[in-house]
Amino acid sequence: MLLIAFYVAITVEAMTAALAAGRRNMDWFGVCLIACVTALGGGTMRDILLDHYPLVWVKNPYVLLLVCGAALATIPLAQLVDRLKWPFLLLDALGLVVFTVIGCNIGIEAGVHPIIVIVAGMVTGTAGGVLRDVLCNDIPLIFQGELYATVSLITGVIYFLGLTNGMPGDLMVLIAIAIGFTLRVLALVLKWEMPRFVFDRNMRR
Amino acid sequence: MLLIAFYVAITVEAMTAALAAGRRNMDWFGVCLIACVTALGGGTMRDILLDHYPLVWVKNPYVLLLVCGAALATIPLAQLVDRLKWPFLLLDALGLVVFTVIGCNIGIEAGVHPIIVIVAGMVTGTAGGVLRDVLCNDIPLIFQGELYATVSLITGVIYFLGLTNGMPGDLMVLIAIAIGFTLRVLALVLKWEMPRFVFDRNMRR
Amino acid sequence: MLLIAFYVAITVEAMTAALAAGRRNMDWFGVCLIACVTALGGGTMRDILLDHYPLVWVKNPYVLLLVCGAALATIPLAQLVDRLKWPFLLLDALGLVVFTVIGCNIGIEAGVHPIIVIVAGMVTGTAGGVLRDVLCNDIPLIFQGELYATVSLITGVIYFLGLTNGMPGDLMVLIAIAIGFTLRVLALVLKWEMPRFVFDRNMRR
Repeated sequence: MLLIAFYVAITVEAMTAALAAGRRNMDWFGVCLIACVTALGGGTMRDILLDHYPLVWVKNPYVLLLVCGAALATIPLAQLVDRLKWPFLLLDALGLVVFTVIGCNIGIEAGVHPIIVIVAGMVTGTAGGVLRDVLCNDIPLIFQGELYATVSLITGVIYFLGLTNGMPGDLMVLIAIAIGFTLRVLALVLKWEMPRFVFDRNMRR
Repeated sequence: MLLIAFYVAITVEAMTAALAAGRRNMDWFGVCLIACVTALGGGTMRDILLDHYPLVWVKNPYVLLLVCGAALATIPLAQLVDRLKWPFLLLDALGLVVFTVIGCNIGIEAGVHPIIVIVAGMVTGTAGGVLRDVLCNDIPLIFQGELYATVSLITGVIYFLGLTNGMPGDLMVLIAIAIGFTLRVLALVLKWEMPRFVFDRNMRR
Repeated sequence: MLLIAFYVAITVEAMTAALAAGRRNMDWFGVCLIACVTALGGGTMRDILLDHYPLVWVKNPYVLLLVCGAALATIPLAQLVDRLKWPFLLLDALGLVVFTVIGCNIGIEAGVHPIIVIVAGMVTGTAGGVLRDVLCNDIPLIFQGELYATVSLITGVIYFLGLTNGMPGDLMVLIAIAIGFTLRVLALVLKWEMPRFVFDRNMRR
């Protein structure tokens, strides 16, 4: 089930990334690259940081074809995809928590410290979007107040605490995904925001 | 011969990168760093993704001196280098296809899936320019319609298909480079462009 | 002593990075991430380039807590930290040379070529700031004429030459740090600048 959710999530990430590329008038190659970086960049960065080789898409290159196919399919369907804002926000929220749980699992397998397990989950869930924004020459969106990385953090902590307290793995996957997904959707609906650190140099005088 | 072409290519990449740094009024250190990232960043990224260590310039650090030397030599020669636009475009086209073939060879040695062999070639050929544009705070040029990454893709596919169909390696190197180089030059002369995905949110209403 | 200096340095880097994040109105998560990337990104990049695993903060995750704690503590203290400009510039200069020496040590342990030892020191000393500026969507500051990377280069060369000429390691740490720190402070006080490469395309006609 986690695997199906993974494929749905990278497809959704690829499609929303393609729209971001289209807003910057990129060519078809740029659309595919932005899609790959967004959908697979988080896992890739996690694996490089943990020295966990081969990378997911090197071992299973067909995910590259899936991501590029989803990105290119978005081009003729752009108006439709953009209009389906809520289904995509929901699937994106699902992707965030699914990626986080998968990342935590890789961290646990690699035998790293609990803090790094949580970090592995957060990197998997959020780094793809950061890389997309860097390539699109934006200040990364997740630093702008949205409750996104925080949801990933909470999902990872709940999942890891459950596992270390002897809960069965399959059940904890469901619980962590359910709580994380609900949190993210609540944050979207109720417009919850992280507090910002607004520092204006000139204020001090 | 591939080795000589490699040294010519990194020298050319270093010199055009130095001009890009000069347009942004960078200091001499910035010029060297942008040159190193542009000339060696593609191979470095490929090796990190494939876990192929030691990196080229760690094993043979003199390429760093060559790249920095070429970049610094560009400073007094800037007017000249800029005026030699066509020789540099041709050498840059040669670099693109040479890097691609070298990248494919590394992928083949590493025993990865054919798709990843092609990706290794494309990363080697194009990632240096993407990293240069990120450091110079631009949207990467190769996403803007130029037939650049596509040439790398086609070169890699021809090279790999030739090898797997029993053609001798040396001959395939020549054929792939000749076809890729011709394609790139035709794209420059005839101003071929990748189609773009232009998505304007406001169009939908 | 190098270890204490290391902890002081990453704390200082985290605090100045937090101010940079605050100037861009980032949220608390963004503040922590920018702080981690700035304080630990140089060492992380060095270790990835040298295939030197596990990464410092994966092996000792408490440095992540230290960095995030220092970054969050900067938020209520922003006016104060900003007013303490000189103490922070001095501690930042100390951090630069300490990071450089630590990076050189890792290069020496890894048994790489002397040029790469110096490069390892420079990457450790300067790459964190480059990554911070990329994430904040700026052209990296160290390319803009400040004598920063050059100080790292000189510190590394002195340290390595001393060691290979039979000087005791502890003494060379002190000498290299003293010279590098003095150079950096002199550069700040006397406003020494690297020459720039100013290239304006339109000048040529």
